[in-house]
Amino acid sequence: MKRGQFLYDGKAKTIYEVEGDSEKVWQEFKNSLTAFNGVKRGDFSNKGELNRQITSKVFSYLSKHKISNHWVADIDKNVMVTEKLKIFPIEVVVRNKAAGSLAKKFGWSEGLALENPLVEFYFKNDELGDPFISDDQAILLKAATLSELGVLKKMGLQINEKLKVLFSELGLDLIDFKLEFGKNSRQEILLGDEITPDTCRLWDKNTGEKMDKDRFRRDLGNIQGAYEAVYERLKGIKI
Amino acid sequence: MKRGQFLYDGKAKTIYEVEGDSEKVWQEFKNSLTAFNGVKRGDFSNKGELNRQITSKVFSYLSKHKISNHWVADIDKNVMVTEKLKIFPIEVVVRNKAAGSLAKKFGWSEGLALENPLVEFYFKNDELGDPFISDDQAILLKAATLSELGVLKKMGLQINEKLKVLFSELGLDLIDFKLEFGKNSRQEILLGDEITPDTCRLWDKNTGEKMDKDRFRRDLGNIQGAYEAVYERLKGIKI
Repeated sequence: MKRGQFLYDGKAKTIYEVEGDSEKVWQEFKNSLTAFNGVKRGDFSNKGELNRQITSKVFSYLSKHKISNHWVADIDKNVMVTEKLKIFPIEVVVRNKAAGSLAKKFGWSEGLALENPLVEFYFKNDELGDPFISDDQAILLKAATLSELGVLKKMGLQINEKLKVLFSELGLDLIDFKLEFGKNSRQEILLGDEITPDTCRLWDKNTGEKMDKDRFRRDLGNIQGAYEAVYERLKGIKI
Repeated sequence: MKRGQFLYDGKAKTIYEVEGDSEKVWQEFKNSLTAFNGVKRGDFSNKGELNRQITSKVFSYLSKHKISNHWVADIDKNVMVTEKLKIFPIEVVVRNKAAGSLAKKFGWSEGLALENPLVEFYFKNDELGDPFISDDQAILLKAATLSELGVLKKMGLQINEKLKVLFSELGLDLIDFKLEFGKNSRQEILLGDEITPDTCRLWDKNTGEKMDKDRFRRDLGNIQGAYEAVYERLKGIKI
């Protein structure tokens, strides 16, 4: 496969066409880190490579567990080819324990276990600051239909069950994570985007240490070391 | 009926027991006005009386249309007796046109007509600033069950249909409004609280003039005149 025309420059990935195949896209993972809707910026040298490797491994694990996702092929250290999806303008957040904005919203301490996993929707719109939305608002915004929201919620919870087990084997507690979904040309709803320490909160089960982008958001240092440790642990797992 | 023990001092009403009747409460409407979670304060002399009168008239209209509510009897200018309810800690907001926080959230101009009425839930908690919540968050918070949320949503939409007709007859456009619901001793879900220019956005259909608490929130002047005009128009309606 060969890289085609430039399509889109995101915060963490640059997307190109795949030459001669309109149903696939070429995704280059970047070394940049952003937080707070792009206000805070940073980078480290092998971040794109680590996140591409982590995503490929996790997506392969999810495929084995019958969870449809957009992964097609690994091309280079920081490049994967995926199915081309029409992405829902919704960030699907799944939470097992309170952290970040949820902890703040309800005055809960970080790490408080939720009685049941919680699925939240955020409207993907940088200008509006990706606001939290209800199902009814998502429908009003035509971001998805009621039945599509049901699919996103169900897939989010299924993915959570699988990822909790996977990360637990790595000695990591999956606190929460963000997913994006889209439809391929056959109108199937697939998991898209990436699953990495950029999009998950992962706490070491023994030390409680944060192994994710909160190290960057909160200036905790050793960001690169945390991302490398996640990949090192994941690499050893047989999928 | 006689006023009993003091129970609770709210922003707009003071609640007492009814002597010898544990299933009713005595509600005194206050002359005070508050906005922005109590930060902005004001008052005018006959506000409690006007809001009690408006609420009684509107609740009587809703009763006629088979919408169960807590009204029992008018006692004095600013006093009504109602059924005692265990109130859900949820503000149910129904919107026909974009205004206030919704317009701001999605960058919509005030007055933009929504394709369908939108029901929103806010968690009643002054300390947290009454945050907007999804159905799933309401359930997690144990603010209501899934089926109770369904009842609140359905009743909210039914009330909206009736109120749109009523206010339209008064030459007023019902932009949005806030409701509270609770359960009586027989576990029936009833509409509680009040329906007044404090809790509704009402725009004059001819002039577009705001006839509600936004006059206070936005320092538009003649607050008392607007509340009096709403009651004057309502008074003439035969229910």
